[in-house]
Amino acid sequence: MYDFTFHNPTKIIFGADTEHQIGPEIKAAGVARVLLLSGQGSAKKSGLLDRVSASLAKAGVAFVALDGVVSNPVLSHARQGVALAKKEAVAAILAVGGGSVLDEAKAIAVGAATDIDLWEFYTGREVTAALPVFSIMTIAATGSEMNKNSVLTNEATKQKYNIASIHVHPRVSILNPVLTHTVPPDYTAYSAVDAITHVLEGYCTKKTGTRLQDRLVESIVKTVMETTDRILENPNHAEARASFMWAATLALNGLTPAGIGPYSFPNHMIEHSLSALYNIPHGAGLAIVVPAWMRWYHGKNPEQFLRFSQELFGLPTPEAGIKALEDWFRQIKAPVRLGEAGIPAGDIPLISENAHGLARQWGIADLYTPAAIAEILQLAI
Amino acid sequence: MYDFTFHNPTKIIFGADTEHQIGPEIKAAGVARVLLLSGQGSAKKSGLLDRVSASLAKAGVAFVALDGVVSNPVLSHARQGVALAKKEAVAAILAVGGGSVLDEAKAIAVGAATDIDLWEFYTGREVTAALPVFSIMTIAATGSEMNKNSVLTNEATKQKYNIASIHVHPRVSILNPVLTHTVPPDYTAYSAVDAITHVLEGYCTKKTGTRLQDRLVESIVKTVMETTDRILENPNHAEARASFMWAATLALNGLTPAGIGPYSFPNHMIEHSLSALYNIPHGAGLAIVVPAWMRWYHGKNPEQFLRFSQELFGLPTPEAGIKALEDWFRQIKAPVRLGEAGIPAGDIPLISENAHGLARQWGIADLYTPAAIAEILQLAI
Repeated sequence: MYDFTFHNPTKIIFGADTEHQIGPEIKAAGVARVLLLSGQGSAKKSGLLDRVSASLAKAGVAFVALDGVVSNPVLSHARQGVALAKKEAVAAILAVGGGSVLDEAKAIAVGAATDIDLWEFYTGREVTAALPVFSIMTIAATGSEMNKNSVLTNEATKQKYNIASIHVHPRVSILNPVLTHTVPPDYTAYSAVDAITHVLEGYCTKKTGTRLQDRLVESIVKTVMETTDRILENPNHAEARASFMWAATLALNGLTPAGIGPYSFPNHMIEHSLSALYNIPHGAGLAIVVPAWMRWYHGKNPEQFLRFSQELFGLPTPEAGIKALEDWFRQIKAPVRLGEAGIPAGDIPLISENAHGLARQWGIADLYTPAAIAEILQLAI
Repeated sequence: MYDFTFHNPTKIIFGADTEHQIGPEIKAAGVARVLLLSGQGSAKKSGLLDRVSASLAKAGVAFVALDGVVSNPVLSHARQGVALAKKEAVAAILAVGGGSVLDEAKAIAVGAATDIDLWEFYTGREVTAALPVFSIMTIAATGSEMNKNSVLTNEATKQKYNIASIHVHPRVSILNPVLTHTVPPDYTAYSAVDAITHVLEGYCTKKTGTRLQDRLVESIVKTVMETTDRILENPNHAEARASFMWAATLALNGLTPAGIGPYSFPNHMIEHSLSALYNIPHGAGLAIVVPAWMRWYHGKNPEQFLRFSQELFGLPTPEAGIKALEDWFRQIKAPVRLGEAGIPAGDIPLISENAHGLARQWGIADLYTPAAIAEILQLAI
């Protein structure tokens, strides 16, 4: 075990119909006016936005709405949100949607609390304040509902960068698993890959035998795989949708890395370039990167990859476990090769240079040189 | 999965020498004067209290000290603490010690924020305010450092009752596992039994197949058993002490029961009577109660007890798993029969009546009649 600080103050309200509690929760936080942020229209079509608006109105919380957040949310739209938040003098941001909406809500919360341009924080400046953030999630995957992270893409520079700050930890996140029953099979699969990768990054790259944390990771991976299989058979499987949602939240809320010491996010680093350059779903990109990265990396941490294979798949070698994970990705119809996502192998040098930029920001550029990243991507052709 | 709310705002600072951070943390919370609560003198002898005092002084936090908290903390001493806290107008309570010191600190925090007598809250009145609580733990077991619970014994009435309130959730808890290296073998064993029982109560009494939560419980139990064995071989095993401490914290911080629906704490209910009546260590009492209770109860939840045996011990029947757990309790030298703790079998009616009082408070008196509790205790003769 290494030293750590764990501080996760987000209040989670989990269950059917819980969106009706958002008004009273925001009111109780002393907030009288919020920016209500949403995505491409599905929350409106489903009637969720109406229920949320009604809850806010009933609690006496005024709001101004902004929709149009895209998957892989972009800086220009976040800047629009900041301008609106300032003009309307809102005291908090409420995200209604998936991880992209919440990530952009966090960005707006930071930008609205300062006169400094938002992007400076995503490129290294420390966040020292933000408006309070609240969320109602319609898809389980990113874990953003219970963590301090936000990822944003600068369309001009093709950079997909992130912030991590206690100031953007949601105050309250409402998780109603019934809202996720309409998530289609492809996005269910991508979400599963995302959640699994969140816990496997630390599990595979740490150097310590912290068995408690290993077991927590294995608990989450087994649950995500098992519930994904059930959901793909029956999208309305209430128990599976609920367990999947809570597992995805726990997968990136600080629990599994607490105490494991230094670790890194190489798969996310490379994938951020794929989705920044080709605008593919994050989970789809991860399904391509993870097996390739594992084949490239496992020799650097052989005992842990042996444990990975034995505990998760009952298989005797690292290679067999990696293949089993890849086979499962295929089975749930996630792409596992660049070509399956329409990414030309000839672009590998370009992708590698782009990813290396993030490697520098994350302090892992020594291991992940452009040549090393290219080697990994070669394994995904 | 059932609906749930999860809200655990405690900031955990984990690692060697972390006690030096307490002054700045309390200062940052806007507190200028605290009651520094401790136990029977070991924190003074070890030099820990001096280091804590120095950290407070350096940060400009004034303090008034009160020692003398006993294991199974008592109402009379907590009332003394309340009087002192009021007289000295402290703004927070800092516990330095084990779960007993922290539980009493929570009691004082409640009593100091009101003119109502403290015990009323332990017998049913809702807690609506408390002074902020901070802690530095010297023993891992109760989980009090990251939860909203406090147990207190009324010596006059022989009642060991509890409160649960977000208001007594510690603001910051400092966990330095090196401080636990001096915990002797017997108390290490009792702590292990306590932590294991915390997670098994819900695991064994819930009625739902929430597999994620089952896996989290099994992760904690396996870790506690494995690290206890190592600690009993080598009390200074740093990795084992650290993993044990964090596992014990996670065992009662709200994580494992989130979403499992209704469950109960029958072993704690019965044990509270043993330690209230005979002042035995809580974990020792649990080691006596748990195997007896399991033998009495397992037929009411057969599938879950089968899982218990298979997953934790690789054994094919509930009975075999229960025996394996009991054997392990013996192996770590915890008492597993009433006589081993000097409790006469003739007292069973008295104990059963006492425990039934708590069963009423906890709403499980229909199942746990005095006769049923006596049946369970008969299995521990």
